Amino acid sequence: MADLAKFRALIDGVRIEDNAQIVKQKSRDFYWYSPVLKRQLDHVTADLIVTPRDEAEVIRILAAAYETGVPVTTRGTGTGNYGQAMPLSGGVVMALTELKQVGAIRPGSVTAGAGIVISELDAATRAHSGQELRLHPSTYRTATIGGFIAGGSGGVGSINWGGLRDLGNVIRARVVTCEASPRVLDITGDDLSKVMHAYGTNGVITEVEMPLTAAYDWIDVLVGFDDFMAAVRFGDELGNEDGILVKEIAPIAAPVPYDYFLRHQKFLRRDQSVVVVMVAPHAMGAFETFVARRKAEIVYRSDKATAEELKSLPPAYELAWNHTTLRGLRVDPSITYLQVLYPFPTHVESVERMVGLLGDEVPAHCEFVRFDGRVTCFGLPIVRYTSEPRLDEIMRLHEANGCPIFNPHRYTLEEGGMKQSDPIQLAFKREADPKGLLNPGKMIAWEDPDFDFSSGKLFLFPGLAAAAARA
Amino acid sequence: MADLAKFRALIDGVRIEDNAQIVKQKSRDFYWYSPVLKRQLDHVTADLIVTPRDEAEVIRILAAAYETGVPVTTRGTGTGNYGQAMPLSGGVVMALTELKQVGAIRPGSVTAGAGIVISELDAATRAHSGQELRLHPSTYRTATIGGFIAGGSGGVGSINWGGLRDLGNVIRARVVTCEASPRVLDITGDDLSKVMHAYGTNGVITEVEMPLTAAYDWIDVLVGFDDFMAAVRFGDELGNEDGILVKEIAPIAAPVPYDYFLRHQKFLRRDQSVVVVMVAPHAMGAFETFVARRKAEIVYRSDKATAEELKSLPPAYELAWNHTTLRGLRVDPSITYLQVLYPFPTHVESVERMVGLLGDEVPAHCEFVRFDGRVTCFGLPIVRYTSEPRLDEIMRLHEANGCPIFNPHRYTLEEGGMKQSDPIQLAFKREADPKGLLNPGKMIAWEDPDFDFSSGKLFLFPGLAAAAARA
Repeated sequence: MADLAKFRALIDGVRIEDNAQIVKQKSRDFYWYSPVLKRQLDHVTADLIVTPRDEAEVIRILAAAYETGVPVTTRGTGTGNYGQAMPLSGGVVMALTELKQVGAIRPGSVTAGAGIVISELDAATRAHSGQELRLHPSTYRTATIGGFIAGGSGGVGSINWGGLRDLGNVIRARVVTCEASPRVLDITGDDLSKVMHAYGTNGVITEVEMPLTAAYDWIDVLVGFDDFMAAVRFGDELGNEDGILVKEIAPIAAPVPYDYFLRHQKFLRRDQSVVVVMVAPHAMGAFETFVARRKAEIVYRSDKATAEELKSLPPAYELAWNHTTLRGLRVDPSITYLQVLYPFPTHVESVERMVGLLGDEVPAHCEFVRFDGRVTCFGLPIVRYTSEPRLDEIMRLHEANGCPIFNPHRYTLEEGGMKQSDPIQLAFKREADPKGLLNPGKMIAWEDPDFDFSSGKLFLFPGLAAAAARA
Repeated sequence: MADLAKFRALIDGVRIEDNAQIVKQKSRDFYWYSPVLKRQLDHVTADLIVTPRDEAEVIRILAAAYETGVPVTTRGTGTGNYGQAMPLSGGVVMALTELKQVGAIRPGSVTAGAGIVISELDAATRAHSGQELRLHPSTYRTATIGGFIAGGSGGVGSINWGGLRDLGNVIRARVVTCEASPRVLDITGDDLSKVMHAYGTNGVITEVEMPLTAAYDWIDVLVGFDDFMAAVRFGDELGNEDGILVKEIAPIAAPVPYDYFLRHQKFLRRDQSVVVVMVAPHAMGAFETFVARRKAEIVYRSDKATAEELKSLPPAYELAWNHTTLRGLRVDPSITYLQVLYPFPTHVESVERMVGLLGDEVPAHCEFVRFDGRVTCFGLPIVRYTSEPRLDEIMRLHEANGCPIFNPHRYTLEEGGMKQSDPIQLAFKREADPKGLLNPGKMIAWEDPDFDFSSGKLFLFPGLAAAAARA
């Protein structure tokens, strides 16, 4: 029913890529973090990649999709982990990487195209007025700002500012609908929840206005601990120090740092757990006092490293969040990971309980954040993977112990998130994508309104089977 | 025994004031907030005011004091509330208001003379690089930075950065000792606790290095509530919104706003409680969303006021902290106030309990802050004063209900604070002021090492009696 030839004709002049190898490569993200998603999505590919040069071309593409019934899956640079930007029904992948203009920079805010790489946006606001984004993923140097908003939740900086979806962490998103005459909507306030973390299923974000904060030349620090729980308590206490400005606090259990952080291995012992910290230069004195009070040991700090050393060492944020797992996968492709919330105020005890239950099968990795005003931690523990049933069992164990799982082994919005449909995002999809062409298969509420989240069953998108047949 | 004539000779060339009227005026602070301190301290005066031009003159003055036995009480502009800078033994008041040079301004920090007025320091760092101090008292436009550190605890900005004595909120203090050859010490890290909030009893702060944060043109907002507890809950929830950047959150119970905020009276009803908020311009959209969700009412916002209106309206921070009381005293000189901590996590319930117990005799005024990483509130309630015994009873009622009092009706460090001696500050006084000449009478641990804080007795400095006899 989708008429790809007509689609191509309608968007004549837009940059198209149809080399099968390149198309397949640009149809993937970091879904292979999950052995489950790797099995399910490995064959997924689009028919075409389109790369609009500006919003006018985005509008033409979406109008053509509406007219011809061709599905459109939007992506930035494909750094997501859940198949967010993978085209389950084939059709078109639209890469927004050319929408990278930087607009107005004001005290506390910047407007930019959705496709700009986050570190490039920061470079522009730093040069302009010593400002930087509040939050960024560990894929700072590769991910786009639009992809972060459409598929991310938080990251580096969340210890100060909470999550992306907290009020104030996105000021405005400009969204194009998929209709006969696509509308361009400037979305602010409560309405932002319609399109944030919706994987581009109900509109295409072309431009964003983001809050900024003061930029610093953050100092990377690794603090070593013989005992992982001492590292966790250190992280918790540091997160609660109101006057010490840090941007990242991640306790990571031995032997992960030594085994997987190969460039930093020379600073570590294999039985040493670490806390990865980013400290503002003017907070370094207070931080050292904090460390000395606890008789903790700084095993590495970037402000004392030589220029030669710095060339070979990745920045601290590329040891944290999903980069911890990425470094692990490079050493041992058999591992995978989880995403856990350890709720305040029992988060430290919860970490301890799960470490006690699972030991080195699930080496712990915590990320301290502000969550509804309180300092608590998420977990992105490594899992020494054996089978899907055991992975499910490990997740059940977490939930049975009061630690909610955000399942990174599911490609749908609901199963990876709150395990319930989001009526606001669904209602907006009815308005903005009446034919259901945007990123099909990711919003269960649209595909199967009667799906029973309590059934314990997986949602399997029919398009996946169709794509499998085509492959 | 003190040889004032010799002292004058030794400091020849330093600016001296000995006009009795001016000396008395410069020997006082805002002690008259308290009817208790007003009775005790009203007669207190120095013999001389000295105003050193630079640190070299401070050193000469302290050496001369050591040689002649003349007491030296250091002050900035005298905006404290507890007689901190009042010379209980007479002698010399040393005003540091000429030590107002601005030194290096870096990303995140500034060095300045202790005597610079806080708003002037902010003006310099704003003009230089769009930065401002993290914290300031409501006496922003009159208080000195050194006085704030020597006598203050926190204030506007504490909702983001906690208190002045939290690690990282002061980077360095340069201190001159009172010895035969005064030493100049650069104090950092843990050692800062020796001299912070020590009222200048154990050294004279001549220069400070302070952390900075991004400066914004803060928008003043008053949100109106029919019910005071709704105002408190609004403040608590706002303080826990990690993504909405505000600098001040103060719920104040009716009829205080209407009765005492005369310039803002036209925006208010007498039965209306308010929350005073300072919002960053780029957070205003998120703040409005937050307000709309709660169906709360913005009764005033400075960004919609005319230039004409703005001329006649004080800034929001001059409605908050000790300025709330100050405005009350201008209307009704018979009132006074308290300083209360409502500990997390039962702070909202504690406020409600005290309001229930004390009603309009003690109209509530809360200040939300970060305290050890959690959002909680202090109280600076107005007290409709009747007698000292009733005031004591009101304080006892607070403490009996789990709300510690920082007694603003006492002139000693210990009785106004933790009701116990501070061995670190005492030990440093032995080193830095071996003759006990700096601000005599304020540190009980020095004056009467055997004083029993649990006795319930007041500490009465003998010098007060002597001064009373002289007066």
